[in-house]
Amino acid sequence: MQGEVKQARKATAERILDAAEDLFAEKGYAATSLGDVADAVGIRSPSLYNHFRNKEALYGAVLNRLLDAFEAPLAELGEGTISKARIFQWLETIIRMHHERPNLARLLQHAALSGGPQTNELIERLFSPMFDTDRSVEMFSAGIGGEELRPWAVMALNNMVMSYITMAPMYRDLLGEDPFSPDALDKQLKLIMKLAHLVLEYEGD
Amino acid sequence: MQGEVKQARKATAERILDAAEDLFAEKGYAATSLGDVADAVGIRSPSLYNHFRNKEALYGAVLNRLLDAFEAPLAELGEGTISKARIFQWLETIIRMHHERPNLARLLQHAALSGGPQTNELIERLFSPMFDTDRSVEMFSAGIGGEELRPWAVMALNNMVMSYITMAPMYRDLLGEDPFSPDALDKQLKLIMKLAHLVLEYEGD
Repeated sequence: MQGEVKQARKATAERILDAAEDLFAEKGYAATSLGDVADAVGIRSPSLYNHFRNKEALYGAVLNRLLDAFEAPLAELGEGTISKARIFQWLETIIRMHHERPNLARLLQHAALSGGPQTNELIERLFSPMFDTDRSVEMFSAGIGGEELRPWAVMALNNMVMSYITMAPMYRDLLGEDPFSPDALDKQLKLIMKLAHLVLEYEGD
Repeated sequence: MQGEVKQARKATAERILDAAEDLFAEKGYAATSLGDVADAVGIRSPSLYNHFRNKEALYGAVLNRLLDAFEAPLAELGEGTISKARIFQWLETIIRMHHERPNLARLLQHAALSGGPQTNELIERLFSPMFDTDRSVEMFSAGIGGEELRPWAVMALNNMVMSYITMAPMYRDLLGEDPFSPDALDKQLKLIMKLAHLVLEYEGD
């Protein structure tokens, strides 16, 4: 009840963004039409054009809203001296954010599979800082495999975190529990943090 | 030249399956039409119906062909006593297979994101054997986190292997090299095998 009242109070532009984010995340850019979005919001298509000039502009606004949120923790990590404790804290924050806002992982995965506008911007804003040598040298210098495998370690970490989200509907049946439940999130966090400790504290060859 | 001759010799049904596999892998089930497939093969749509009665039947045939190939190594692993050496061998085989036939990972990811027919069969044939308690107890009993986290360890492994494939177009720019090149595959193998060794030989709490 309270949720409905809150929903009704939301500005139309924000309701359009919410609906578009869900649809792009489910079906991908190409398969989503502005008509689908208007239907989901409960407005007529022409009203939608009062807020966004076309599908690409709407998609861009959806992406920007998500990227703004996800960039913040990495930017924060970049300020000041990097320590293992701060890396673990950042990792936990990112995992929790992907569970709370699963649509970014889904949008990215659709874009990687099927293409779409602004893919370069996506890569630049979300992934480049993690692959950037200066910073990741600090972050993963103690990591498994050394210099040579560092980008592969970054990808592996990213894949474990984001693909848990994008594959969740398939994992649900296998787990016999919702992968987004607090209990499942707790286990995902435990596993990833243990792996991250193993990798970051690994001192073998 | 020789490739073209070989292609021309392929039976029409197989050429249809090849084209459909690529299209379903790129665009997903819903966004692929039989007309797209016919165009890609260079035949007229009605001819396609001589081979497959509808889109769902074609999709089923595409999936079956892929699942048949990918099931074999796990079935082989299941025969006889499971050892760490055999698990590592199986893992390497699976990683190499996904690089040679990247479309299974893409089809699965589309199905998880957007749904589609035969999802239950996909889960049953590909994932259930890995989650099946009796077998995975043997396979991951020495693994990180024990009983409680075992399904999460299986998912993490799966995500690292399959999402490397499905995210490859995005990783290409970041790596500055083709994620499917022999050199990149070699590094991916090194990283995953090191992680698998760490996890399977981990004896902490």
